[in-house]
Amino acid sequence: MARMTHYVRVRTIERFLEALTAFMRTIRHLRSTAALLSWDQETNMPAHAAERRAQQLATLEELIHREFTALSTRRLAERAQELLPSLPDSKQPMVRLFLREYRRIASLPRRLLRELAYTQALAVESWRYARRENDFSLLAPYLRKILELKREQTECYGYTEHPYDALLELYEPNLRLAQLHPLLTQVAEKMRHLLAWVHERPHPPTPSFRNPVPCAAQFMLGRSLCEAIGFNPQRGRIDYSTHPFCVGLAPEDVRITTRCQESDPRVCIYSLLHELGHALYEQNLPTELADTFAGEGASTALHESQSLLWEDIIGRSFAFCRWATPLWRRYFHGDLDSPWQHLTPEELFAAVNLVRPSLIRTEADEVTYHLHILLRLELEVELLRGTLPVRELPEAWNAGMQRLLGLRPPDDRTGCLQDIHWALGDFGYFPSYTLGKLYAAMFWRRLQEELPDVEEAIADGEFTPILQWLYRHIYSVGALETPTEILQRVTGKPLTPDDFVEYITAKVHRVYAHTL
Amino acid sequence: MARMTHYVRVRTIERFLEALTAFMRTIRHLRSTAALLSWDQETNMPAHAAERRAQQLATLEELIHREFTALSTRRLAERAQELLPSLPDSKQPMVRLFLREYRRIASLPRRLLRELAYTQALAVESWRYARRENDFSLLAPYLRKILELKREQTECYGYTEHPYDALLELYEPNLRLAQLHPLLTQVAEKMRHLLAWVHERPHPPTPSFRNPVPCAAQFMLGRSLCEAIGFNPQRGRIDYSTHPFCVGLAPEDVRITTRCQESDPRVCIYSLLHELGHALYEQNLPTELADTFAGEGASTALHESQSLLWEDIIGRSFAFCRWATPLWRRYFHGDLDSPWQHLTPEELFAAVNLVRPSLIRTEADEVTYHLHILLRLELEVELLRGTLPVRELPEAWNAGMQRLLGLRPPDDRTGCLQDIHWALGDFGYFPSYTLGKLYAAMFWRRLQEELPDVEEAIADGEFTPILQWLYRHIYSVGALETPTEILQRVTGKPLTPDDFVEYITAKVHRVYAHTL
Repeated sequence: MARMTHYVRVRTIERFLEALTAFMRTIRHLRSTAALLSWDQETNMPAHAAERRAQQLATLEELIHREFTALSTRRLAERAQELLPSLPDSKQPMVRLFLREYRRIASLPRRLLRELAYTQALAVESWRYARRENDFSLLAPYLRKILELKREQTECYGYTEHPYDALLELYEPNLRLAQLHPLLTQVAEKMRHLLAWVHERPHPPTPSFRNPVPCAAQFMLGRSLCEAIGFNPQRGRIDYSTHPFCVGLAPEDVRITTRCQESDPRVCIYSLLHELGHALYEQNLPTELADTFAGEGASTALHESQSLLWEDIIGRSFAFCRWATPLWRRYFHGDLDSPWQHLTPEELFAAVNLVRPSLIRTEADEVTYHLHILLRLELEVELLRGTLPVRELPEAWNAGMQRLLGLRPPDDRTGCLQDIHWALGDFGYFPSYTLGKLYAAMFWRRLQEELPDVEEAIADGEFTPILQWLYRHIYSVGALETPTEILQRVTGKPLTPDDFVEYITAKVHRVYAHTL
Repeated sequence: MARMTHYVRVRTIERFLEALTAFMRTIRHLRSTAALLSWDQETNMPAHAAERRAQQLATLEELIHREFTALSTRRLAERAQELLPSLPDSKQPMVRLFLREYRRIASLPRRLLRELAYTQALAVESWRYARRENDFSLLAPYLRKILELKREQTECYGYTEHPYDALLELYEPNLRLAQLHPLLTQVAEKMRHLLAWVHERPHPPTPSFRNPVPCAAQFMLGRSLCEAIGFNPQRGRIDYSTHPFCVGLAPEDVRITTRCQESDPRVCIYSLLHELGHALYEQNLPTELADTFAGEGASTALHESQSLLWEDIIGRSFAFCRWATPLWRRYFHGDLDSPWQHLTPEELFAAVNLVRPSLIRTEADEVTYHLHILLRLELEVELLRGTLPVRELPEAWNAGMQRLLGLRPPDDRTGCLQDIHWALGDFGYFPSYTLGKLYAAMFWRRLQEELPDVEEAIADGEFTPILQWLYRHIYSVGALETPTEILQRVTGKPLTPDDFVEYITAKVHRVYAHTL
């Protein structure tokens, strides 16, 4: 009888795991399909197709929601809950991921999803219009409506301390505002000190970027850097788009984009290095996880740690500039008296590491960037709580900029209308950028300890050891471990700003010290 | 009481139509999404992503099947059947389209669909391999399996006369093999007479196409012709692919592709004019039908009538050559003594209208093309019936080529391995090409009667009257009328080969007569 029970149990588990696998594959394929529709929209879609494309995307989202709320899926979730304790350890993380995702999606009524999708679509259009017209009042009513819906969303999810926690959870699981805010404040404090230190010093000599470089040449340099580092063109592609992004349809199909300013090739190259960091993560996720909920990055912040690692920590290092300078010269030489002929690693290093308070987040340097993030965090918490009325957002923004960066935006276009995130309903997203940088610095310190010759390797254009290290420690687990677990396993420490502060202080001192 | 019943009835109909609209929109969005995945596969997808893309497409197909076989859809179909007689005339065609589609898809068990998809995917790979290796035995077992499944499919659909009818119905509703075969035989007879006439005459003088033309220039000429004729680049795009095709994701998003041989620009230009014909149909389908089952061409054959109208009847007319010759000169001039500088309309007209028996269908002229089609029809009927064993296909093919065209393929690569259709399971498709040409010639005769100055307009590059005529008579009804209904309404006649025979005889005489 005991053996019979055991047999029945084994068959039950087998059947459950089969059904779970089939369910996750359907969802992943639908999501990947939706991602392709979005990629196509940014790169290839004819101008007049936008409206129907939005409807097609809404249909896919509705189908995904329908799959999650089907009776058979509810039964699958009940079965998962019931079997979880008796599953082998190796199966538990996947089942937990499924349950987390199930609760997140099945808790939202379809009406709310539809209203969110509809309002966000209108809000994004209004945002574009408001930004062009420099008129916040065009966006305000939509933002108000989105905040209402987001509050409803937090109630559906549930939370114990602050409604913001429920949204934060979407981007960084297990983090609470009560820990996040002091952390970001602490980083901001250090950055303001560093900024004050820089303020007393002249900028180092940098090349003139006034000589325009054709976009085709910038794109070719960027592609060549990406492929030399490890981007696999057989498993991905690189295109132009208005706003650079990375989309991983599958490990075999990872697409990144960049943009171009002829007057400043740093924009194209460093946008691409940023997306490359995301792409290396996506291309190297284990293929056997691809059709499961573990076949993606561990969190938004952890994904961001990879893009910032490659863009900033590696890409703006002196060793990298030593390797890349001959390539900049080769692709940009133009004619014989072109200033690019004479570019030195020192100049390139200085040019990509200048520290200057500025109005636009996406153009900010590694120091001031985190002040932009703290501002957004504080404002979105207040907006969500309702203590900051939407109509007062522009003034609160400008006051915050003055307080944190010492700059006052001359208009809302360069103020609170600069980012698309809130119009998209992405409240809780911004902190991922700073968190990602803290993760990246912690990983980098550990990597340097294990690979002491890494800087020489970079200067030689040898990136394989870094990729192998990242694969072993981060890529290969997909989302089977939480960011906290990954961090603990790799660095032996919980999240701390220390490594980042140490890294950035050392670099800024190196860039600015010799100019005294 | 009578008013109450009436009220209830009206509400019932309203609710039914709402549910029908929602159902069709979901299906159309899913299909359009799948079409984008396929387009992307041919134009943009990285090499290594093929396998997972096939799985993603299979998931979408399964979801579509699941929608059709859901209990709620069965109820919708029952309700449709029941309400049909009492619906206003304007609503009936749409409901009939739905019922036809419902019966077609819901009658297939999911297992059969899966097996078909799986076997076809393997068969296409085997076909590529077999063609490369010139070894039919590599394809034979898969073809055998596909035929088994197709026979099962015909049993699911049901038929009264011949199993082939059940497949023909997918491409041309209401046509039976018993009418089709005599029709195609009659066309073939006439073509063989015409061929014998041509055979006694020398070819007219044509330009040398040996001077290679860069693909970029060919593509630019092609695009420029398409846009001058009426292709709207705000509602579509043009790309390269190995095999030219057209995909209509929506009237606002119609994509065509072409291929290029540097040694022969006719391939690029006329492939594009062919796809343009499909694209003009798709771009001009009424947008209010787009998310319904009527938002597509009336049948495969009717779609083909549009591509052949623009590629052959208009694109290879002398009037068109008069208009296009200066553009060929301008885009291909190269240097001053390039032969393209001296191209005349007469030469271009001759060069795109040469009649020569050849082995490959896609390279065949307007006369011999239909002999290729008759051969395929006869072989696929016998294969399906089982009277021709698969292993004897190569010999039967070669004997048929000898009999119909007087040529014997030296190998299977240029024989029965040349087309992808059978590996894809597309039995019943080939006749659409000849049917399309017969339709096109009938439409063209009617159009010429209504627009007697049409040739002058073409020679002047003025295509709007043609497009307006096509919109009024064909595009604007989408699939709300059957091809038979459209033909009867537009021409007042049932399907006949006479107009085509008359058209092609006149043209061939014009091309070859003066060479005697």
